[in-house]
Amino acid sequence: MRLRLVIAYDGTGFCGWQSQAGGGTVQDHIEAAFITLCGTRIPVHGAGRTDAGVHALAQCAHADVDPARKIDWLTALNANLPREIRILRCTRAPASFHARFSARGKVYIYRIWNAPILSPFEFHRAWHIPVPPLSLDTMREAATSFIGKHDFKSFAANRGKPDEDTTRTIHSIAIRKQGPVISLRFQGDGFLYKMVRLMTGALVKTAQHRAAVSSIAAHLSGASAKWTHAAPAEGLYLARVLYQPPPSR
Amino acid sequence: MRLRLVIAYDGTGFCGWQSQAGGGTVQDHIEAAFITLCGTRIPVHGAGRTDAGVHALAQCAHADVDPARKIDWLTALNANLPREIRILRCTRAPASFHARFSARGKVYIYRIWNAPILSPFEFHRAWHIPVPPLSLDTMREAATSFIGKHDFKSFAANRGKPDEDTTRTIHSIAIRKQGPVISLRFQGDGFLYKMVRLMTGALVKTAQHRAAVSSIAAHLSGASAKWTHAAPAEGLYLARVLYQPPPSR
Repeated sequence: MRLRLVIAYDGTGFCGWQSQAGGGTVQDHIEAAFITLCGTRIPVHGAGRTDAGVHALAQCAHADVDPARKIDWLTALNANLPREIRILRCTRAPASFHARFSARGKVYIYRIWNAPILSPFEFHRAWHIPVPPLSLDTMREAATSFIGKHDFKSFAANRGKPDEDTTRTIHSIAIRKQGPVISLRFQGDGFLYKMVRLMTGALVKTAQHRAAVSSIAAHLSGASAKWTHAAPAEGLYLARVLYQPPPSR
Repeated sequence: MRLRLVIAYDGTGFCGWQSQAGGGTVQDHIEAAFITLCGTRIPVHGAGRTDAGVHALAQCAHADVDPARKIDWLTALNANLPREIRILRCTRAPASFHARFSARGKVYIYRIWNAPILSPFEFHRAWHIPVPPLSLDTMREAATSFIGKHDFKSFAANRGKPDEDTTRTIHSIAIRKQGPVISLRFQGDGFLYKMVRLMTGALVKTAQHRAAVSSIAAHLSGASAKWTHAAPAEGLYLARVLYQPPPSR
């Protein structure tokens, strides 16, 4: 029986999503909870990796469990997880559902605290840019260069996959300010490794007038080298994984 | 020269405000920062104590420093404090100003997360009451009993001060709900030890229909014993300390 999990986590204390030898990742914790409950390893497949320090409001994953087990998975998993990781929803999914391959898009939110003193309640949860006040108009103008279908290889960190198709479509980038918090909401059909943090780094540089708005298009066209200035992990939130709506019956 | 400090802190990792032999309090950290900057102990006087785990949006304190020192105190103090403690404002105050004795009132906010699953971003920052949904109408009706001038000895933890005047005036209790968060905003001329947490405990019990609304008046009148059910520390925020506005010149 396939379970679909929707997961929120405060990424501060974890080594990212993806399981690793030393443990300490979000996936490791969820798989450890399954071992406690089932006595055997149940692989958990996430919709995508998040780096150390990156948060999730609604990561998505699937796992196959014994249908004979009568158990309230939501409650049982949460009881065996650190409080910084919460399963928000746990539903039965068709066997054809795959958290990663069925995903049709993702939404990321990047939060910037743009005021001299970072609130203690925002430590590890936003990128602190004390001064100067960032120009939202400039950021919005620069963001339009990213919209649409592009080869984003200049806005991706190399993960040693030379043959990877680096074409992605960005559907929207919404930039809002509420008090000292600037939030950037990226929606696209997929994102390359570090792509949101590199795009955010570029938008901030233009808003600081340390890069020309036109430089983004130049990088996208391949006329310039890779963009290297990435925003830090702590401001990034995987906000939603988008799936095809199920066919109506 | 007297400095007036406005301080925010995430109380999770600290042993409360008040200095203690073992250190680890917010006051200890601020005094340690002064020692680093001045080479000598500068006592820091807070407007009031907060317990371990209690937060502050705007605690107030004063400290006397050598006027000959030319230093940007705000920046220098923050550079020597953990990120969970931030000095938000640092201004020169008249010698007659005393953070505690000049205070004319305080505002506390108590936050409750009233939904089955606590967001990982609210861990340590709200009281988690999973079920049932609390009745705001009942809570608001019960809160009216607290408004006004009363002897609050039944809603105070004994701190070994038998002669303490336990009369206080509560000016307002505003109760709001936003998503799963219920916030209670208490404004009064002063608060006894654990008084906000005991009042919150009572309001929640009535909203859960585990205590009659009338029981609050009974406790206040002294007809019943002390109220013992206190809300936990993690939902409490010292939001503001109120001072007389300075005379216009």
